[in-house]
Amino acid sequence: MTYRAPLTDIAHALKVAGLDELVETGAFDGADSETVTAVLEAAGQFTEGVLAPLNRSGDQEGVRLENGKVRSAAGFAAAWKQYAEGGWTGLAADPAFGGQGLPKVLSLAAFEMAHAANMSFALCPLLGEGAIHLLSLHGTNRQQDLYLKNLVSGAWTGTMNLTEPQAGSDLALVRCKAEPHGANYRITGQKIFITWGDHDMTDNIVHLVLARLPDAPPGVKGISLFLVPKVLVGDDGKLGAANALRPLSIEKKLGIHASPTCVMGYEGAYGEIVGKPGDGLPLMFLMMNSARLNVGMEGVGVAEAATQKALQYARERRQGRSPWSKDQTALIVDLPDVRRMLALMTAKTQAARAICYATAVASDMANHAESEHAREAAKLREDILVPIAKAWSTDVAVEVASLGVQVHGGAGFIEETGAAQFYRDARITPIYEGTNGIQAMDLAGRKLGLENGKAARDLLIEMRSTQIADKTIAAHLSDAIAACERATDWMLANRGTPDALGAATTYLKLMGDTVGGWMLAKGADDAARLGLARFYASQVLTLAGGLADTVESGSAGLENAAILGA
Amino acid sequence: MTYRAPLTDIAHALKVAGLDELVETGAFDGADSETVTAVLEAAGQFTEGVLAPLNRSGDQEGVRLENGKVRSAAGFAAAWKQYAEGGWTGLAADPAFGGQGLPKVLSLAAFEMAHAANMSFALCPLLGEGAIHLLSLHGTNRQQDLYLKNLVSGAWTGTMNLTEPQAGSDLALVRCKAEPHGANYRITGQKIFITWGDHDMTDNIVHLVLARLPDAPPGVKGISLFLVPKVLVGDDGKLGAANALRPLSIEKKLGIHASPTCVMGYEGAYGEIVGKPGDGLPLMFLMMNSARLNVGMEGVGVAEAATQKALQYARERRQGRSPWSKDQTALIVDLPDVRRMLALMTAKTQAARAICYATAVASDMANHAESEHAREAAKLREDILVPIAKAWSTDVAVEVASLGVQVHGGAGFIEETGAAQFYRDARITPIYEGTNGIQAMDLAGRKLGLENGKAARDLLIEMRSTQIADKTIAAHLSDAIAACERATDWMLANRGTPDALGAATTYLKLMGDTVGGWMLAKGADDAARLGLARFYASQVLTLAGGLADTVESGSAGLENAAILGA
Repeated sequence: MTYRAPLTDIAHALKVAGLDELVETGAFDGADSETVTAVLEAAGQFTEGVLAPLNRSGDQEGVRLENGKVRSAAGFAAAWKQYAEGGWTGLAADPAFGGQGLPKVLSLAAFEMAHAANMSFALCPLLGEGAIHLLSLHGTNRQQDLYLKNLVSGAWTGTMNLTEPQAGSDLALVRCKAEPHGANYRITGQKIFITWGDHDMTDNIVHLVLARLPDAPPGVKGISLFLVPKVLVGDDGKLGAANALRPLSIEKKLGIHASPTCVMGYEGAYGEIVGKPGDGLPLMFLMMNSARLNVGMEGVGVAEAATQKALQYARERRQGRSPWSKDQTALIVDLPDVRRMLALMTAKTQAARAICYATAVASDMANHAESEHAREAAKLREDILVPIAKAWSTDVAVEVASLGVQVHGGAGFIEETGAAQFYRDARITPIYEGTNGIQAMDLAGRKLGLENGKAARDLLIEMRSTQIADKTIAAHLSDAIAACERATDWMLANRGTPDALGAATTYLKLMGDTVGGWMLAKGADDAARLGLARFYASQVLTLAGGLADTVESGSAGLENAAILGA
Repeated sequence: MTYRAPLTDIAHALKVAGLDELVETGAFDGADSETVTAVLEAAGQFTEGVLAPLNRSGDQEGVRLENGKVRSAAGFAAAWKQYAEGGWTGLAADPAFGGQGLPKVLSLAAFEMAHAANMSFALCPLLGEGAIHLLSLHGTNRQQDLYLKNLVSGAWTGTMNLTEPQAGSDLALVRCKAEPHGANYRITGQKIFITWGDHDMTDNIVHLVLARLPDAPPGVKGISLFLVPKVLVGDDGKLGAANALRPLSIEKKLGIHASPTCVMGYEGAYGEIVGKPGDGLPLMFLMMNSARLNVGMEGVGVAEAATQKALQYARERRQGRSPWSKDQTALIVDLPDVRRMLALMTAKTQAARAICYATAVASDMANHAESEHAREAAKLREDILVPIAKAWSTDVAVEVASLGVQVHGGAGFIEETGAAQFYRDARITPIYEGTNGIQAMDLAGRKLGLENGKAARDLLIEMRSTQIADKTIAAHLSDAIAACERATDWMLANRGTPDALGAATTYLKLMGDTVGGWMLAKGADDAARLGLARFYASQVLTLAGGLADTVESGSAGLENAAILGA
């Protein structure tokens, strides 16, 4: 079996996340329920029929650098053409630029299916989304006309060029140079880990590149952002000569083999500034925040795909005896420990989906809610949820993909089965677009600091005030919320100290576990969902008190480097 | 950097595990402390100098099936020759068969280093150990003379042939046939997942094969065990014609690429019975139990190697600012969240090592303690610890290898760095030699049932009675032991029910977490080890109460298959 788009679960999660309330704001003309259904069904068909069949072949074939150009895996260029023609690249973009103006949450639901079907492929539009978001807000009219519209239509693709060998998580160390040249700039330097930095799927690629002007101050304040096309574009929109940039090499990676990860060389390349000199970091964060939530979505997608594959296997494979089945040799889905793994995979995947969709709805509401008060509240909610959506969902992706291998037993370790690919592919998601450690620092630092903890407190208050009918769930959830309250108090009291830095990852896990359990409980509107929410409560929320204890132990002696031995 | 044998940590763990008391039994003539030190140092040199340099090249090259024969990766055959000549294949074997008669725990310490340096290579002698153990106890004099001595010397290697396509964890389904032919048998059938089932490192391979006699009853009682050489052996020990067996194909796997995993075809091959007809299962378990502990050791090895690599990287890579370092750009080892990951990796690796060594000492003591009472107590201890040593240590291996990738950030996802290989290689360890789910069933079922829970209770009593001076550790440990006591009572009260089966994996994790923390605390004889034990207590033992709550939720609604959706 290949991927089947979980349309019922997705529609349910959109409802729980508040899609209806979002549409009621009137900000999304076209987003009536028929349209929503039609978009989801079309995304399901496209991802099942076009993207999923290229997932394993792309993994096996990988990408090649030939004569200075990246060749994508067989079928990818044709799939991109269909993807663009289907309007998938501009789902949430402004109609003024050729987009469909649908809610971000709906666009992300479609992305989830693309990630699940073919993570390597979907990474390309994921990065394009960041560029579209940025240029919609900060591009000049000319940039919007010449570049943005082609990104929205999918005629071209976009990339983010941040990392350099010495500058990974720490962008203060960026050295790439931008020298004024007429009204524009010459960009020189090397960038690494550039996803889809080169390929043969479209005629042009729009690179957004962090670099320093000659007179820029050191550190992050000296960084500016530049638009650097692969092929020069005339004022009439016609493609001209090649720009002075090229992929120097591509990485041999653990996973996402069909997604080229390039070292890019800029050799005095033509570049246009986006925004003002020195605005690089905030502009980069605009792209990055869009990408962070989308990477969380990627986690949901690969977790969903891994769960489906494991479930399918467990419903066909017979071994041993079950206390619940009369079969002489049981289907392994009927063995308690296997069903436990599958239920954990299902529950965590659904919890991660709920968190990501809720983050997207908050983001939409932050722009479109009717009152300023509602927009501000939604912005706070988005701010606190983004690092959780990114980090918790991607940690879940790795955990679920690993459980998926385990459910398969020995067969899971054989590449042919496909479970191993999810385990390999998923492993990048806690790393890129800000490692999960960075997300934890963001949550424990800047996000917790907003209005002295208001974002976290508002969330906890809303969780506390939710009526949960099921007694088992209500009891576990109440304990878990109490653990979150205690840990939040402690994190606020210690904000910025080494103790809080040492406890940040555990705090994020505690918050993610609890918010996920709360969302499953809120959405438990039938017996199956209620059973799953109860299972999650008794398997995951039970650990919340211990996690809060761990948070309160702070850095737990880590300040002494001798703890790691000689 | 490549692997460095952690001789200080290993010597420390051997001491805490009770090697001295073992030697004092007088059962191991040669095992004075100079010999122990010399063996460990020699193992360190050999694994660092010979095996580790072949780890990445073996991963990249893999193995090939050419003209019906498996070709090992470059350098492996020469390394095997050195391994055999060094006496490593017979470290714990009986001197009567050419072995060195050293304690099993010392042999396993040497194995740990081999696993860490090159997991693919070390798998070959791991399986040979099982065959040596079996034939030492149950081989005929002729089998010991013709086969066992060659296994002990490393002239030949051994395999275990259990699995068939329809019979993985459930050996009742084995179909391979053994038909009487003169005094011996003709073996016919197909076996899968046969590690080092064929290779070019030695002249012969001794296969131990589960099969059914024509008149055998169905189920596991109808299984017998056969010795089937790759090349026929004359009564004079000379090699004759090829036997009627061959590797049909090799698997393309997620990891351990240099270890051939074969589908083996037996086409009326000559076989000799080992033990009596119908003894297959208990004899197989003799081999399997030896292999299970050794797979736990493999988990320790790969976790150690992953930790070393991550630590090395974190001590070279600079990014961001640290609250503990005055560097403008800090080494990432000085970032609290990175140091947290490294400390968790270090602590869990050391805890897993302590558990595995303690299991090995119990096994040695079960054979060699002076009083029958002490031997019986040691056997109970070995019985309860084997599933924990196997499952907990290998889950730790996967967790630690994954953290190792994370510490590297983007570089961890690039194969060249080497962190990804550990992540891939480690993933098989929770699967083979009995999945970790099977280990949990063994612990919660047969092992907990021994003398109505005596094995678990004796362990908990010993843990309770250990004086821990450090107050932080003592408090967390006491809580964790209480959680184990509560969970053990519950598991005993519910033994054999679906609830206990659903809770078994969580129970095993709880026991492993706690026993590991207890062992770290027992061994905390300097400031660094005390710091690490305290860190573990505040990060891991804190979760014990929640795990016990999870155990008590039993199968938590899993009996309803609808929990998994349609």
